[in-house]
Amino acid sequence: MPNADVPSDDVTLGPESAALLERRERLPGGASRLSYERPFRPVRGQGCILYDAAGNGHLDACNSVASVGHCHPRVVGALARQAGAPDTHTGDLGGEVVDYAERLLTTLPAAIDRAVFTCTGSEANDLAVRIARHATGGTGVVVTETACHGTTADVAAFSPSLGPGVPLGADVRTVPAPVGGDADAFAAAVRAAFADLARNGVRPAAFICDTIFASDGVCADPPGFLAAAVDAAREAGAVFIADEVQAGLGRTGAGMWGFSRHRVVPDLVTAGKSMGNGHPVAALFGRHGPVDAFGQSARDFDTFGGNPVSCAVGLAVLGVIEDEGLIENAKTTSERLRLDLAELAGEHAAIGEIRGAGLFIGIDIVGEAGADAAGAARIVNGLREKRVLIGATGPKANVLKIRPPLVFGPREADFLIEMLDDVLSRH
Amino acid sequence: MPNADVPSDDVTLGPESAALLERRERLPGGASRLSYERPFRPVRGQGCILYDAAGNGHLDACNSVASVGHCHPRVVGALARQAGAPDTHTGDLGGEVVDYAERLLTTLPAAIDRAVFTCTGSEANDLAVRIARHATGGTGVVVTETACHGTTADVAAFSPSLGPGVPLGADVRTVPAPVGGDADAFAAAVRAAFADLARNGVRPAAFICDTIFASDGVCADPPGFLAAAVDAAREAGAVFIADEVQAGLGRTGAGMWGFSRHRVVPDLVTAGKSMGNGHPVAALFGRHGPVDAFGQSARDFDTFGGNPVSCAVGLAVLGVIEDEGLIENAKTTSERLRLDLAELAGEHAAIGEIRGAGLFIGIDIVGEAGADAAGAARIVNGLREKRVLIGATGPKANVLKIRPPLVFGPREADFLIEMLDDVLSRH
Repeated sequence: MPNADVPSDDVTLGPESAALLERRERLPGGASRLSYERPFRPVRGQGCILYDAAGNGHLDACNSVASVGHCHPRVVGALARQAGAPDTHTGDLGGEVVDYAERLLTTLPAAIDRAVFTCTGSEANDLAVRIARHATGGTGVVVTETACHGTTADVAAFSPSLGPGVPLGADVRTVPAPVGGDADAFAAAVRAAFADLARNGVRPAAFICDTIFASDGVCADPPGFLAAAVDAAREAGAVFIADEVQAGLGRTGAGMWGFSRHRVVPDLVTAGKSMGNGHPVAALFGRHGPVDAFGQSARDFDTFGGNPVSCAVGLAVLGVIEDEGLIENAKTTSERLRLDLAELAGEHAAIGEIRGAGLFIGIDIVGEAGADAAGAARIVNGLREKRVLIGATGPKANVLKIRPPLVFGPREADFLIEMLDDVLSRH
Repeated sequence: MPNADVPSDDVTLGPESAALLERRERLPGGASRLSYERPFRPVRGQGCILYDAAGNGHLDACNSVASVGHCHPRVVGALARQAGAPDTHTGDLGGEVVDYAERLLTTLPAAIDRAVFTCTGSEANDLAVRIARHATGGTGVVVTETACHGTTADVAAFSPSLGPGVPLGADVRTVPAPVGGDADAFAAAVRAAFADLARNGVRPAAFICDTIFASDGVCADPPGFLAAAVDAAREAGAVFIADEVQAGLGRTGAGMWGFSRHRVVPDLVTAGKSMGNGHPVAALFGRHGPVDAFGQSARDFDTFGGNPVSCAVGLAVLGVIEDEGLIENAKTTSERLRLDLAELAGEHAAIGEIRGAGLFIGIDIVGEAGADAAGAARIVNGLREKRVLIGATGPKANVLKIRPPLVFGPREADFLIEMLDDVLSRH
């Protein structure tokens, strides 16, 4: 599993961190994994920089949750201010949830006119598939072969990236990730998957994909390749759910949502991670028809979803994205990074294909035998020693994942390239 | 559905609230429901008091989420302070999650030595059942007939209170709620339910119950009645999951957890709602055997679960419960309330049985034809006009639900009784 390092015995942890590690290993059980062989312990953060207890700044090139920068004062201020007002629930009539829903819906296609809030992307995807099943009367779900849509029981059953210990549902089929962006091949695979479900008597419910295919190793180009697959899913009778937990909120540098690069209008959209810059906020968006029909049938009440604090925080995040021009920044920084990475690729044989959009970039690490997961892990841990934080992803865990806060600028990009060059030189 | 009022046309909303209501009705879809015929719009809170925009204080006798009181300065302070430190995730090595897990585990039986954090009680129950299935190899789940354990797809399938629009799973069986607290009858029903599952070829996974049976209309006495049912479940091969989302963290006035009144040690325990006093924090606790085995098999990573801010908030809540003696307060206020309610029952024929433990009290409202849901709704809405906020619950929606913040004291109890007396006098 990428980014799930076992702390190595031959690296030096400070005595405080070592003691903490020992206590931690007794507590949350084996499901909780640490990043890096030498675990990182941030105590302060600002923008793209995380500081350890000794005051050493580390360049965060991986944490997309803190998308407007760590501890952004406008977001922390909104959080503290609203938490001092009553933090109740949507059974009360509050303005924040209405303001936030309206604001988010202005960024979405006009056909999408309903917003339902949850706390996590898992919950949003879980709700999306419940609505899809209710709308279609079917249960069949098609996903890509290393997709990760979350960890509720139902969502885990269509998240193959969780590994063989978590069986896929009997009404789930996977299709190969759209590596290379061949629209016809991807559409044909989706069509065949729904046909296979039908052969087993399973009626279609949803085709769901992360619109940047993060856990599949990042598949972004050419823009538009997704449209034919969405058409194929709809022809089969399924709805299309755009999982924007990774690609949404400006990440791709091409508008607010990843699906817009592909010129498709989803039936349902989910978002999470970066919506609250770390505060647990997530949402489901959809057309009023299926969302209202589901709501009238199911008596959902969500204790925390849409609470005033979460909505105030979410509004502050949207304000920062707009006022600081972060979508444009994601685009320009990405262009600079991609040029420099292409140059590095000419100097280091370990660099294979480079893919991505905006500030979500995947870099294949290859060796003589092809995909090189051990090499990618070595680079990730080498960069961590150079105080640069990145991750790894992909079906073969050999894809470097560069996914920094959206405030990542030219200075940060140059430092990342310099350190990557250095680590690759010793590779 | 209790507490899901349709705003009435013949009540007067201020122009601002009316405009907000109109905007809101277009947005989150039919799944989002308001409490009270005349929706309440709090703008400030302190202790048990919520204030509307005109500055009118309303006595909150229903919101158990804000369990240490609305906007407690120690909790809001911890939230604001930690949000200004980096709010990352458990892939980093942070002290807060370890401190919080250790602190919570000291309140649980020694056999329970693992803590896994999520954001919501739904997620905690979803995870609990995944672990139960992994540990037992079975899938069968037994719940009470109006149980509510949450709203993920999987949990909704064993939450009959969500209504006929949400079908129960094929491997789910319900048992009558333990009204009257007949231990033998409840145990026999659980035994029969697992036998019925076995007859259908379904192997047992879990018996899960809310230890105060809130949505079943509140069943608390006699303490200890639950033990025989837990034994029956274990004899059938199932694990016992104590859902403490409602009863946990001091609510019953008899220790931290509802199950301790019944002298049972659960296999798995879930908590949520009040853990963060409104901030989305929830947890799963269990024995290391099944929790670790599941963790090694399933590659769960939770973006928000156990984040430093949630843990700092949770620690502050535990500190307040202890330092302000809130469990003792729940006990003494409850005794006062119960005596006064018994007296009211002598004066008002509408009051039937009174049940509960600590600051979770259910009052049956009865008419000539028995359970009187319309009467209960009239009382709830009548009290709201008297600036006292309570709810309704139970399979027949005729049970008044008194479930205030744990700081509810004698003055608040007396005001509640006075207003209830007044509303009942016009009933």
